[in-house]
Amino acid sequence: MSLHRQLAQDIASQIEGGVLRAGEKLPSVRALQRQRGVSQATVLQAYYQLEHRGLIESRPRSGYYVSTRWQQLPREPRPSQPSGRSTPVKVSELVFDILERTRHRSLLPLGSAFPSPLLFPHKALGTALARAARTLDPWASVADLPPGSWDLRRQIARRYLGAGVRVDVDDLIITNGAMEALNLSLQAVTRPGDVVVIESPAFYAALQTIERLGLRAVEVATDPRDGLDLDALRQALDKHPVRACWLMTTFQNPLGALMPEPQKKALVALLAAREIPLIEDDVYAELYYGDRAPRPAKAWDRDGGVLHCGSFSKSLAPGYRVGWVAAGRYTRQVTQLKISTSLATSIPAQEALATYLSGAGYEAHLRKLRRALQQQQQAMRAAVAEHFPRGTRISHPAGGYFLWVELPRGSDTLALQRRAFEQGIGLSPGPMFSALGRYRTALRLNCGHPWSAELAAGIATLGRLATKG
Amino acid sequence: MSLHRQLAQDIASQIEGGVLRAGEKLPSVRALQRQRGVSQATVLQAYYQLEHRGLIESRPRSGYYVSTRWQQLPREPRPSQPSGRSTPVKVSELVFDILERTRHRSLLPLGSAFPSPLLFPHKALGTALARAARTLDPWASVADLPPGSWDLRRQIARRYLGAGVRVDVDDLIITNGAMEALNLSLQAVTRPGDVVVIESPAFYAALQTIERLGLRAVEVATDPRDGLDLDALRQALDKHPVRACWLMTTFQNPLGALMPEPQKKALVALLAAREIPLIEDDVYAELYYGDRAPRPAKAWDRDGGVLHCGSFSKSLAPGYRVGWVAAGRYTRQVTQLKISTSLATSIPAQEALATYLSGAGYEAHLRKLRRALQQQQQAMRAAVAEHFPRGTRISHPAGGYFLWVELPRGSDTLALQRRAFEQGIGLSPGPMFSALGRYRTALRLNCGHPWSAELAAGIATLGRLATKG
Repeated sequence: MSLHRQLAQDIASQIEGGVLRAGEKLPSVRALQRQRGVSQATVLQAYYQLEHRGLIESRPRSGYYVSTRWQQLPREPRPSQPSGRSTPVKVSELVFDILERTRHRSLLPLGSAFPSPLLFPHKALGTALARAARTLDPWASVADLPPGSWDLRRQIARRYLGAGVRVDVDDLIITNGAMEALNLSLQAVTRPGDVVVIESPAFYAALQTIERLGLRAVEVATDPRDGLDLDALRQALDKHPVRACWLMTTFQNPLGALMPEPQKKALVALLAAREIPLIEDDVYAELYYGDRAPRPAKAWDRDGGVLHCGSFSKSLAPGYRVGWVAAGRYTRQVTQLKISTSLATSIPAQEALATYLSGAGYEAHLRKLRRALQQQQQAMRAAVAEHFPRGTRISHPAGGYFLWVELPRGSDTLALQRRAFEQGIGLSPGPMFSALGRYRTALRLNCGHPWSAELAAGIATLGRLATKG
Repeated sequence: MSLHRQLAQDIASQIEGGVLRAGEKLPSVRALQRQRGVSQATVLQAYYQLEHRGLIESRPRSGYYVSTRWQQLPREPRPSQPSGRSTPVKVSELVFDILERTRHRSLLPLGSAFPSPLLFPHKALGTALARAARTLDPWASVADLPPGSWDLRRQIARRYLGAGVRVDVDDLIITNGAMEALNLSLQAVTRPGDVVVIESPAFYAALQTIERLGLRAVEVATDPRDGLDLDALRQALDKHPVRACWLMTTFQNPLGALMPEPQKKALVALLAAREIPLIEDDVYAELYYGDRAPRPAKAWDRDGGVLHCGSFSKSLAPGYRVGWVAAGRYTRQVTQLKISTSLATSIPAQEALATYLSGAGYEAHLRKLRRALQQQQQAMRAAVAEHFPRGTRISHPAGGYFLWVELPRGSDTLALQRRAFEQGIGLSPGPMFSALGRYRTALRLNCGHPWSAELAAGIATLGRLATKG
C-alpha cells in the first residue's frame, strides 16, 4: 500500500474506532509530517482522501476536523487483502447457477448485471437500425468481416480522440460485445497454465474465462475507491510469472473503484517495463457522474501493450452485442482469433450503431443516463444505510451502477441470496467475485434501475433478512 | 473401406486404367458375386455407385457396360488416404494469410467461402429487421440472453421437425453464427491435448479451432462423394483415444461429399457405442439440389451425443451472424460457455429472423437459391473440364457451392494461388484443408456466384496457369 493510503487508513481506523472523536481537531499537516516522517504531499493526499470519504472536513484557516456527521454516513468497505497465492479457478458452476436464477423478469433485479433497458434510446436506435436494414449493402457481409465495419471503427476512433486517447482505426476490432473482446484478448496473450493478475474482488466473467482457458489467477489487493493497489501488484509480479493483467480501471465491477489517473499511468509504466500486457476492461467508461470522462490506462500506452476493451452494451445499445478491442501490438493475433472463433459481428447491428453515432444524439443520451444512474445510486445507498444491519459498509463509486455492500462479520450472503430469491429478490453474493470463494459477507447490488417503491421495499426486506441471518 | 466401395474402386481403376474399355460389358452381378465371394447387395451397391459416377451404364435386360462417354466426363477425385496419425495442428497462419488476401472485393471470388450476397432476399430481411427494430421489447436484451430468443428457437425447432428430426426448443442455443456454435461445442467436450477426428481434407475452421484449443487431430479417409469412410473411422477409434468427432456429413467443405443416410445412421451408432460425441457441422443442409433434404446424423441421435450446428449465414442471412446448436446432453455446458464467451447473440438479428421465418417466403427463396447454385456448379464444372490440364479431377457434389479440384501430380496449388492472385483471381489451395499440409495438388473453387463472362475468363486463366505450372 502506498504511504498516503496507509496513513489515511490509520487515521480512518482511529476515527472509526473512537480514538478520534467527532468534531475533534486533527494534527496539523506539518505536525503529522514530523510525527510520521513523511512528505507534506503524503499528508495532504491522505487528508484529501479522508475528506472525500466524508470522515474529516477542513475548516478555512483552522485545519482539519473529524466530521460531525461521519457516523451517519454509511462507512465504505476496506481495501481487500487477498492471500497473494496463484490458484486455479473453479467458480463457473456457482456463477452460472446464480445467473440462471437471477434472470427471471419477475425477480427484483438487484442481482442483475445490466442497467434497466428503459434507460436507453430504443426509438432512435430502432430508426438507425431500420435505416441500416433498408440501405445495407449486400456486400457488407463480406466487406465487414473482421476487423469489422470501417464506419463504425472510425466513429469509435473519433470518440477515443475526444477522450484524449490516440487509437488508430486499424487497431480496432469489432467484437460480439466486450465479453468476446476480453476473451479473445486473454487468449491472444496466454497459454494454458499461465498466471493472470486480477483485482480482488474481480468481475466473475474474468474468473470464468480464466477457468475456461485453464489459467491461474492471482487476486491482488484492491481499494474500493482507488482500485488496484500498485504496491501489491508489484509484489505479485515479483512473486509470480505473471503473463497478463485483466483489470477494470474505471468503475470496477463489483467495487465501483476508479483508479486515479496518476495510478493508471504508473500501472502502464510498471507493466510496460516488464512487458506484461494489460487487458483493460473499460465497459463502464461512459458512466461517470463527474464533469469529465476519466481517461483509461490506454491513454498512457506507448508500446501497444494495453488491449483496451469497450462496448456499447452498457451505454447505448444493450442487446445489440457490439463491442470492440483496441488491441495495440496484439491486433493481428486478436483478429485471427476473432475470425476462427465467431467470424464476424452482426453486420446490421454494426451499421446501425455507425449510423447512430454519426448523429448528434449520443451525448445528450449519455448525460441523461449518467444523471439517472447517479440519482439511483444515491437513493439506494440511503436505503441500504437505513435498513441494513449496523456495521454494514457500502461502496461509494463515482460512476457505474453497482454498490458493493459488506455485511457485519459472520454474515453469509450465499444463504442470504437463497432466502432473498424466495422473496422474489435477486442479489449477487460476494463469492461470485473471487477465485478463492472469499467475500462471503459481501454482496453486489444493482442500482441501475429507476428508483421505485418496489426497490425501496426490496431493500427493506433484504435489510431485514440480513439482520436476522 | 467398406466392401462395396472397395469393389467400386477396383472396377473404376480398371476402367480408368484402360483394362476395361468403353462399351465393354461388365461381369454379371452373379458372376462378380462368385468371383469376389461377396453378397449380391455388395455388387449392386458397387454398380450403383459406378453408374452414379457416370463410369458405367445399365442396359435393360442386358446388364452393365462401361460408359461410352466416361472419358468426356471430368473424373472425380479419389478417396483420400491420410496417414492416420494424430498430430498437433499448425495451419492458422497459412489460412489467415490466404483469407486476408482473398477478401478484397476486386478479386474474382473463386477462393471465397461465401456464396454471392446477391442470392439472398435482402429486401424481405430488411423489412423484417426494420419491423424488429420498431417493435423490439427493451427487456429482450435480458430475456433473450442465452439460450436465446424463444421465438427464433421455436422456428428452428419447427424446421427440424419438418426435416424429420426431433429437437426440443430447450436443446437449442442461439450463437454468433455456426462458427461459434462449433467452437463452443468442441470446447464443451474436450480438454487441451485431446484427440479429435476430422475428415481429410477438412474445413479449415475445424483445423484452426483444434489448433487454438491445443487439441490433436486425426484426419480420416473421406470419399469425395460419400463422405467419411466408416471403416477408417473405426480403425482410428481403435488406435487413438478419440474424444470427439467434428464432421460435415452433408456437402462437406471442401469436398462436397454427402454421407448416405444409412452411413449417417451407422456413424451415430458407432460413436454412441463408444460414448464419443459427434459435432455435426451442417451449415449447408439447405443447399441440396435434389428433391428432398438429406437428413443429418442428428436424426438418429438417441442419447443426445450429437451436437448439431446450423446457421442462417449460408441459406438466408449472411452477415446477420445467427447460428445455433442443438446440443443434446451437452446443452448445459454449451450454454455456460456461450455466456462466458460472448454472452448473447445480437437481439435485433434474432428477432428479425424469427419474424422472417414466421412468414411464407423462406421456402420459395430456398428453391430459387438451390436452383441457382446447381446451375452455377454445372457451368463451372464444364469450364474447369474444358480449361484445366488433362488428368484434372473435379468433384461432383449434390449440393452446396464448392468444387474440389485435383490437378495432375506435381502441381503446386500454393504457388498457383500466388500467381492467380497477381491476376486478380482468388482460390483456396488444398493445404488450407489439412493438418498435415497435404493436398498440395488440390484446390477448392467457389461456384456460389452467378455465372458470368468474368468467371468464365477467370477459369480459363486459372486453367492456363495450372497447365504451365
